[in-house]
Amino acid sequence: MLPPKQNFSEWFHELIQQAEILDVRYPVKGLYVWFPFGFKIRRYVYEKLREIMDRDHEEVYFPTLIPESVLRKESQHIKGFENEVFWVTFGGSTPLDVKLALRPTSETPMYEMFALWIRTHADLPLKVYQIVNVFRYETKHTRPLIRVREITSFKEAHTVHRNYEEAEEQVKKAICYYKEFYDFLAIPYMVIRRPDWDKFPGAAYTVAFDTIMLDGRTMQIATVHNLADNFSKTFGITYEDVDGQHKFANQTCYGISERCVASMIAIHGDDNGLVLPFEVAPIQVVIIPIPYRGREDEVIKACRDVAEKLKKFRVLLDDSEDRPGAKYYKWELKGVPVRIEIGPREVENGEVVVSFRDEKKKFSLKVEELREEKILEWAKEMRERLRRKAVENLKSMISFIKELSNLDAKGVKVFHLCENRECGLEIEKFGVSLLGWFEEIPDWMNFPKEGECIVCGSRGKLAASAKTY
Amino acid sequence: MLPPKQNFSEWFHELIQQAEILDVRYPVKGLYVWFPFGFKIRRYVYEKLREIMDRDHEEVYFPTLIPESVLRKESQHIKGFENEVFWVTFGGSTPLDVKLALRPTSETPMYEMFALWIRTHADLPLKVYQIVNVFRYETKHTRPLIRVREITSFKEAHTVHRNYEEAEEQVKKAICYYKEFYDFLAIPYMVIRRPDWDKFPGAAYTVAFDTIMLDGRTMQIATVHNLADNFSKTFGITYEDVDGQHKFANQTCYGISERCVASMIAIHGDDNGLVLPFEVAPIQVVIIPIPYRGREDEVIKACRDVAEKLKKFRVLLDDSEDRPGAKYYKWELKGVPVRIEIGPREVENGEVVVSFRDEKKKFSLKVEELREEKILEWAKEMRERLRRKAVENLKSMISFIKELSNLDAKGVKVFHLCENRECGLEIEKFGVSLLGWFEEIPDWMNFPKEGECIVCGSRGKLAASAKTY
Repeated sequence: MLPPKQNFSEWFHELIQQAEILDVRYPVKGLYVWFPFGFKIRRYVYEKLREIMDRDHEEVYFPTLIPESVLRKESQHIKGFENEVFWVTFGGSTPLDVKLALRPTSETPMYEMFALWIRTHADLPLKVYQIVNVFRYETKHTRPLIRVREITSFKEAHTVHRNYEEAEEQVKKAICYYKEFYDFLAIPYMVIRRPDWDKFPGAAYTVAFDTIMLDGRTMQIATVHNLADNFSKTFGITYEDVDGQHKFANQTCYGISERCVASMIAIHGDDNGLVLPFEVAPIQVVIIPIPYRGREDEVIKACRDVAEKLKKFRVLLDDSEDRPGAKYYKWELKGVPVRIEIGPREVENGEVVVSFRDEKKKFSLKVEELREEKILEWAKEMRERLRRKAVENLKSMISFIKELSNLDAKGVKVFHLCENRECGLEIEKFGVSLLGWFEEIPDWMNFPKEGECIVCGSRGKLAASAKTY
Repeated sequence: MLPPKQNFSEWFHELIQQAEILDVRYPVKGLYVWFPFGFKIRRYVYEKLREIMDRDHEEVYFPTLIPESVLRKESQHIKGFENEVFWVTFGGSTPLDVKLALRPTSETPMYEMFALWIRTHADLPLKVYQIVNVFRYETKHTRPLIRVREITSFKEAHTVHRNYEEAEEQVKKAICYYKEFYDFLAIPYMVIRRPDWDKFPGAAYTVAFDTIMLDGRTMQIATVHNLADNFSKTFGITYEDVDGQHKFANQTCYGISERCVASMIAIHGDDNGLVLPFEVAPIQVVIIPIPYRGREDEVIKACRDVAEKLKKFRVLLDDSEDRPGAKYYKWELKGVPVRIEIGPREVENGEVVVSFRDEKKKFSLKVEELREEKILEWAKEMRERLRRKAVENLKSMISFIKELSNLDAKGVKVFHLCENRECGLEIEKFGVSLLGWFEEIPDWMNFPKEGECIVCGSRGKLAASAKTY
């Protein structure tokens, strides 16, 4: 049995194990095993991400091991990662001449090579991505999918442009790609520009996607960075422009980790287990025969006919020995979006009983109406229901405040804030993180866009704070 | 310019860089960067491998980092890998309590968990695979794709069965899967059972796939191991059988590394560059307009119409400013299987000129005959030509010998050998490796299956030796 979702932290941990997403019993802190079922979800989620990235990027693969000298080239960057880098120091029993870092992210090895790849303006823009394992020596409390020592599928994109404006343009595109991706997963988000002191180490600025958990803490689920020419100056990424001049390139990078899977599980799941959007569910339709002594054969035959009819989808006919109640329990836990039950009465009437994972109600449908288009329509409706519910939940945990003393209540606090660093730091004295300023105001958010800074009273823009994962 | 293929080693190294498969300039020995073009080949090759594996296995992901205690559990196994393991010893500036190995392969972390996963006969067989990066501290001469310190896409499958017979059955199936895979790549192979002293550390026996390079050295491109109950006894993988008894499971594992890409490049390539089977070519059809002053527009229009007609495939219309000769050179280097040229004469006649990457001849074809089925037919014929050519080449480098003194000549030597260890070791005194005994005799090999052992004269079976990669 799962703990109720209200006990969010335990519920999440138990669900990850019981629904067979990850095995949390691997004998190293912060490392987990993807079960076959969990891996399928990961595969479908990342297939979508890959499809989106492939439109505007080419996939590459850079080595996992980074020589210390390369990692240390950009001084701001290494400061940000220094304490969390795993170091390889031995090959067999031989100490290595050069210490090798396990990539925490791939700016440095990539940009070392980009300096060789880029010669002239004709080589630009360069837009690549990779989906790889990256490593962080997390000393804080680790959590499966959320705070881990091996991110097993980090999607990192890196682009190189002629000037700042083109990099800026790419940042906007990246935000659009990520919106499409999270809309696909029915995950609501806030697009927020991080404070300068909380940006990616080495970036000009950072825009992040934050979503919210049931306990009122936010989780960063994507970041987009404009690197300007900070890295290109360090790594010597120059190009000969049309005018013959040699110029430093401008760069961006943006990433999504398996927190995309975490957020989907955490936000849509309920007391009974996973609730998965149709497109990423390993089993999309489960067919459960309702046995009745002496009529098993016709029931099973009807089930098989329906399975055959829906074979374009990932359909499972559960003809195991378990009782129907046990099957309901099992497939609810696994988040199967569509359940079809067939008993003797349905066989007689040429019907099936349908229910959706995210709704309580059941209804009957004539078999001939059970067509591919019907299922796809349900899938679309379900995604919309999940999205609406998640947005409502997000909204319910956001409040607009005008008094600093209200900052530490549960949830996301929205207020006006000027760009003065002192004012920002004042916010964080209340034990919350200043997420930053809204880069875009969500269409469901109606707070005034500008107003008096909650700290100093001068002109401020819409900002948000929360406790974070 | 490429060196001629006769200078195999330089040719291979140059081709990998010039055709933009891997960038060999990464500043750590034995580590390479996959260029976008190379990555696409890798992706198509591994999609096929995944498709084959998915029929009989589920995909999983196990952590990259293995605690020393787990890696050392199986004493034979660790002996085989001890000298090539990279060790992570620091997180940030903190020495780790437990040294962590970068997986050289995943038997130990997987089997540690399998012991938790498997309870009864109902949990068996268990068949999983993963495609992951693995690490070997190679001290010998490294070579891109062939001998590397990070194998970026190691496909390893692991299965658990009730008894030895079922494991044996799975070994046979695995051999079939790998044959299908290499047939798809038009790579010929010899299926050979390794001598006992050269088997996988911890296995009962090892069957390997060997193919041959132009310099007469063989390359191991796949291995299949029956582990019997060796590992299950160490890791405590037991199950309750139908009779209520607790028994040790039997296991197999089998793997393919990116040497599959290496062999495809090395075997099919020629003096002009890559020759790729149609199915895995990043660009399958290139269309080259032959310009003629004043008629550029109609030529380009005809090219676009053909591109549109073939859009189901990966088609590139090269309308760059380069001269046709430069385009031929470039796309031959990149191994594009089908080239279509269109000039004013072709426009007038409603024709195209077609040539295939692996053949010298060109021919004309009416545009209306240029249909999808036609292209697929060409793809099939081309694969068959590549396969035949590769088999002919393999055959030409195999000779049957009756005298030990002939062992050290170039190529593969086939002879009769008994199973006596001393006789086997005698072979290796000639500076070659004893590959082992043929598990299956290829249909194109007509040597007598049994005969007198080339060393001691007692009854022997068909065996092979060669210099190896």
